[in-house]
Amino acid sequence: MKKIGIMMGSDSDLPVVKKAIDTLKDFGVPYEVHIYSAHRTPVQAKEFAETARENGFGAVICAAGMAAHLAGAIAANTTLPVIGIPMRSGALDGVDALYSTVMMPSGIPVATVAIDGAVNAALLSIEMLAIEDAGLAQKLLDKRLADTQKVLEKNAAAEAEFNV
Amino acid sequence: MKKIGIMMGSDSDLPVVKKAIDTLKDFGVPYEVHIYSAHRTPVQAKEFAETARENGFGAVICAAGMAAHLAGAIAANTTLPVIGIPMRSGALDGVDALYSTVMMPSGIPVATVAIDGAVNAALLSIEMLAIEDAGLAQKLLDKRLADTQKVLEKNAAAEAEFNV
Amino acid sequence: MKKIGIMMGSDSDLPVVKKAIDTLKDFGVPYEVHIYSAHRTPVQAKEFAETARENGFGAVICAAGMAAHLAGAIAANTTLPVIGIPMRSGALDGVDALYSTVMMPSGIPVATVAIDGAVNAALLSIEMLAIEDAGLAQKLLDKRLADTQKVLEKNAAAEAEFNV
Amino acid sequence: MKKIGIMMGSDSDLPVVKKAIDTLKDFGVPYEVHIYSAHRTPVQAKEFAETARENGFGAVICAAGMAAHLAGAIAANTTLPVIGIPMRSGALDGVDALYSTVMMPSGIPVATVAIDGAVNAALLSIEMLAIEDAGLAQKLLDKRLADTQKVLEKNAAAEAEFNV
Amino acid sequence: MKKIGIMMGSDSDLPVVKKAIDTLKDFGVPYEVHIYSAHRTPVQAKEFAETARENGFGAVICAAGMAAHLAGAIAANTTLPVIGIPMRSGALDGVDALYSTVMMPSGIPVATVAIDGAVNAALLSIEMLAIEDAGLAQKLLDKRLADTQKVLEKNAAAEAEFNV
Amino acid sequence: MKKIGIMMGSDSDLPVVKKAIDTLKDFGVPYEVHIYSAHRTPVQAKEFAETARENGFGAVICAAGMAAHLAGAIAANTTLPVIGIPMRSGALDGVDALYSTVMMPSGIPVATVAIDGAVNAALLSIEMLAIEDAGLAQKLLDKRLADTQKVLEKNAAAEAEFNV
Amino acid sequence: MKKIGIMMGSDSDLPVVKKAIDTLKDFGVPYEVHIYSAHRTPVQAKEFAETARENGFGAVICAAGMAAHLAGAIAANTTLPVIGIPMRSGALDGVDALYSTVMMPSGIPVATVAIDGAVNAALLSIEMLAIEDAGLAQKLLDKRLADTQKVLEKNAAAEAEFNV
Amino acid sequence: MKKIGIMMGSDSDLPVVKKAIDTLKDFGVPYEVHIYSAHRTPVQAKEFAETARENGFGAVICAAGMAAHLAGAIAANTTLPVIGIPMRSGALDGVDALYSTVMMPSGIPVATVAIDGAVNAALLSIEMLAIEDAGLAQKLLDKRLADTQKVLEKNAAAEAEFNV
Repeated sequence: MKKIGIMMGSDSDLPVVKKAIDTLKDFGVPYEVHIYSAHRTPVQAKEFAETARENGFGAVICAAGMAAHLAGAIAANTTLPVIGIPMRSGALDGVDALYSTVMMPSGIPVATVAIDGAVNAALLSIEMLAIEDAGLAQKLLDKRLADTQKVLEKNAAAEAEFNV
Repeated sequence: MKKIGIMMGSDSDLPVVKKAIDTLKDFGVPYEVHIYSAHRTPVQAKEFAETARENGFGAVICAAGMAAHLAGAIAANTTLPVIGIPMRSGALDGVDALYSTVMMPSGIPVATVAIDGAVNAALLSIEMLAIEDAGLAQKLLDKRLADTQKVLEKNAAAEAEFNV
Repeated sequence: MKKIGIMMGSDSDLPVVKKAIDTLKDFGVPYEVHIYSAHRTPVQAKEFAETARENGFGAVICAAGMAAHLAGAIAANTTLPVIGIPMRSGALDGVDALYSTVMMPSGIPVATVAIDGAVNAALLSIEMLAIEDAGLAQKLLDKRLADTQKVLEKNAAAEAEFNV
Repeated sequence: MKKIGIMMGSDSDLPVVKKAIDTLKDFGVPYEVHIYSAHRTPVQAKEFAETARENGFGAVICAAGMAAHLAGAIAANTTLPVIGIPMRSGALDGVDALYSTVMMPSGIPVATVAIDGAVNAALLSIEMLAIEDAGLAQKLLDKRLADTQKVLEKNAAAEAEFNV
Repeated sequence: MKKIGIMMGSDSDLPVVKKAIDTLKDFGVPYEVHIYSAHRTPVQAKEFAETARENGFGAVICAAGMAAHLAGAIAANTTLPVIGIPMRSGALDGVDALYSTVMMPSGIPVATVAIDGAVNAALLSIEMLAIEDAGLAQKLLDKRLADTQKVLEKNAAAEAEFNV
Repeated sequence: MKKIGIMMGSDSDLPVVKKAIDTLKDFGVPYEVHIYSAHRTPVQAKEFAETARENGFGAVICAAGMAAHLAGAIAANTTLPVIGIPMRSGALDGVDALYSTVMMPSGIPVATVAIDGAVNAALLSIEMLAIEDAGLAQKLLDKRLADTQKVLEKNAAAEAEFNV
Repeated sequence: MKKIGIMMGSDSDLPVVKKAIDTLKDFGVPYEVHIYSAHRTPVQAKEFAETARENGFGAVICAAGMAAHLAGAIAANTTLPVIGIPMRSGALDGVDALYSTVMMPSGIPVATVAIDGAVNAALLSIEMLAIEDAGLAQKLLDKRLADTQKVLEKNAAAEAEFNV
Repeated sequence: MKKIGIMMGSDSDLPVVKKAIDTLKDFGVPYEVHIYSAHRTPVQAKEFAETARENGFGAVICAAGMAAHLAGAIAANTTLPVIGIPMRSGALDGVDALYSTVMMPSGIPVATVAIDGAVNAALLSIEMLAIEDAGLAQKLLDKRLADTQKVLEKNAAAEAEFNV
């Protein structure tokens, strides 16, 4: 199975990005984690991106805050799908990171998820791998059904509490 | 090859979405276009989503403006990757559509591109198919090189005009 | 008397939505509470909406945060009035939910109240039932007068404290 | 049948508000139009609101731009449902009017629709009257089906043009 | 000397508005405090405004949050200068109150100060009275000089700490 | 009668500021117009402010766009009331000017009106002069009544056109 | 004299960037213009940045729109001062470019000017060179005086037109 | 070596501005700290700016919050490069200060860094001095390499923890 690259611009992003790691682990999808900054370690970030496909990666998740250039910088150096997680941080609470991540110029897409949306970033990467992997697709479906079940249980509890 | 579904909430989205269609055509990627609204034709939208995987789709692109629910509604009914294009329209110029598309709850990701980012939506869907398709990956690389070439030509023209 | 449906996308909305429940209880208006998500339980949400009128509902209140699609998804499946409460949550503090709830396309209205405006959502639903119910209209008036009285008492206290 | 009051703060709102009038006319719902400003004709606006219920109104639609106080001022003086249309105008393009209309304090709800959402304001008022009027409810359903049909026709045209 | 009216929409505004009261007290300017809501006690608010000039007021300060209509409602009923303090409260942190207060339509001005700017509201009202009152003007100047002095002392401390 | 100073940061502000001049002219209030920039002619702006009171001014209106510092710079050098008009210009359409004008620090108030609110700036300055000038107060009341009359005439026309 | 590098992400930026070129030309400051994109020509952009100091540059001006990463990408590869011009373009009118340019992480500063602020970008670069160049400093002062003179002439014209 | 002026509008800015002071100290760059307010001590601020060049300053850093005029006021009185730090404070969390600092009119540039970006302000000032100072340029490069090293160490730790 292809691996998912997980990159974050700073170790302060780890508590949120951890949820993406855990989600991939739950699905049994291999991954590789790096702390690479678009601005402080541009060489390493670029090299990772340029060799990602030949190194067996299927997609790359990038988390960064403020003027979040990481996802774009990676996307500029690979044609693998790049998923951007805008991180909530600083005075603008992630609106800056959202705009910096999603408003990419034509030619270099970044698949952007919600601010701090680490679980969805992981799920999106799994959905990409599952395009050609029926087993993985089934696991995604199973998780959906489990999520539905959880809501229905909460609904049952609320019905029992509030409805006569 | 898997097909790409292209859905838009209104025919007023067509001039922008057309660029996604043209991009897929340029890459020789099969696609299917629909005008389905999350609110006005929820039945058809849902049915498309539920059967998309078995019908040979690899990913679905959804374009919608204002309270742009289309991508989310499709994503709720398939585990294929769903790509959302927030459309610029109305008084808020697409900020509403961007937030409605990207701020999805945990469990149901939407891969969001820039407001009116139709070309990137198509490229992103091709990148997804190219994870397991070396030929398509090569075509993506060729386009990147061609884009680079175009910038370099413009740079050469600017250098000639402004630099002594 | 017609019932009011109260739906929320997540049980984390309950502390706020509770105020809507309490308001309806105070007015003796029958209600039914559900936790249904537009994305995680779309089938149940849709079914509720489609049968709401025949099941004796007069209006439906929907609370959801972030890319708040719930009110719109319900409104797409019923011609009963749907009232949307945008929930404050996540990095954008409810601005995303407000835009996702209020900026509905022509044809599918959602009566939107303030972010976290659960009491007003309940009052609005009661006002709707009171169009043809003089007794309920009188209760609304009584509450208004009581609210006025409370402000006047606070004013009297402030006058006593600050004015010579 | 109860009448719908339609109020706007300025005659410059008329081109947009006209769509609400036309919608009510299409549904055969009686209405009464006024240009009353919360600030320039507060006496008339208040008097209209205070007597609206006894004068046979079922709901009141209020359109206003910028610091849009009209809907709130009417709502403060009646317990009928008040529907607010934030108008797009001035430098802030209606965001000011949206916030001024929707962020009402607890006790005085305003059912807010999209910026310039005049058609939906009218439909929402009809939905309110239709709670106890099966014929009107049927007309709403007919319009929904007609809207669905229009989208499906556009979809058919798009399918014919783009899908092989 | 003319009195300054101080009105707030809710007693929750008191901790901030208290600073305006204290400022007026410091300047020996007479004032009168009321808790009147534009929506919950519209009658009392209007009556205060209509009689403010004849009752010896020179200006009215109005503090309100969210859809802050109070200053506008008072301004609609008096030709005395009305000063609006947008209060920080709710999910939008006072941006809604700022827009609702400052974006008044032509004909009904509200002199708006910063969000939670209670001290400046009081100073502005004193500046208005001081147009024709040399003694009061002198007091304003004295306060300016005292403020300058305080900054210079802090500067001296910082210079001593950081500059060699 | 005291004079009103009218200052603008650039002659591009003149088409909007002209409405303030015309309003003052209509009321017979003396005024003096200057184009002074806080940044390009700081000396002249400061000198005007420092001598404004002794030169017979009662209030100063300042119009500026973008990082609109003019009103604040004038306010820093006089204890006369300073009225700020944030001008709509540039990419941010006046939101920058609004924030730069209204969010003044404690001690130096600026009475801010709506973006491009030149008429209201003039009316506000007249209201200030009218605190101690019954004749001017009457003129303000006359204008209010005339404004009301205009709305009522438009209302009559709308009633005639739309109401049966 | 050191040269100023002028880089823009797209030739569509040229009409605005032209003003920076003209300003440098007016001051007799040598410059070199390039169209290099952070995403489409990352290699060339990086190489320019890495060799800029040794190639005789004193500062680099970077203009880019939307997710404007260019200035940051250059700044990551040089310790010369980098000046960023956020360009007005797309649905967000440059707010995205402003945030992407200015909200840089600690360690990699970008000296950001106003949206479309090309003249100021050039002046800022000249101010940097003028720190150690008295002749250039004098030219800056001359331009300031000329700008002041222009405002004073406009003021004189306005005084003649409006003041009696 | 030229000195760097560090000015802040209030002593409440000191905890953030301290980081700029520390950074300059680390680089051995001489500096001078002042608490001067554009509005409360305009005379001192102006005098500092007018004499800064002759007093041996190479650049001036200005930190201010809300309607942050300080950087602009200093820039209006010197042709030295002025660096603005918008401070996070008040209800708008620094967006007001960002706009007030960066959106300067043509002719008077302010080199704006991120909200609360004190370290980058200091680094930018050092970069300016380093244009003509190879030793200082080397120190900047050393810090860059040290920053890179720190990220690589964190990356190594993350690799050790998460990658098998």
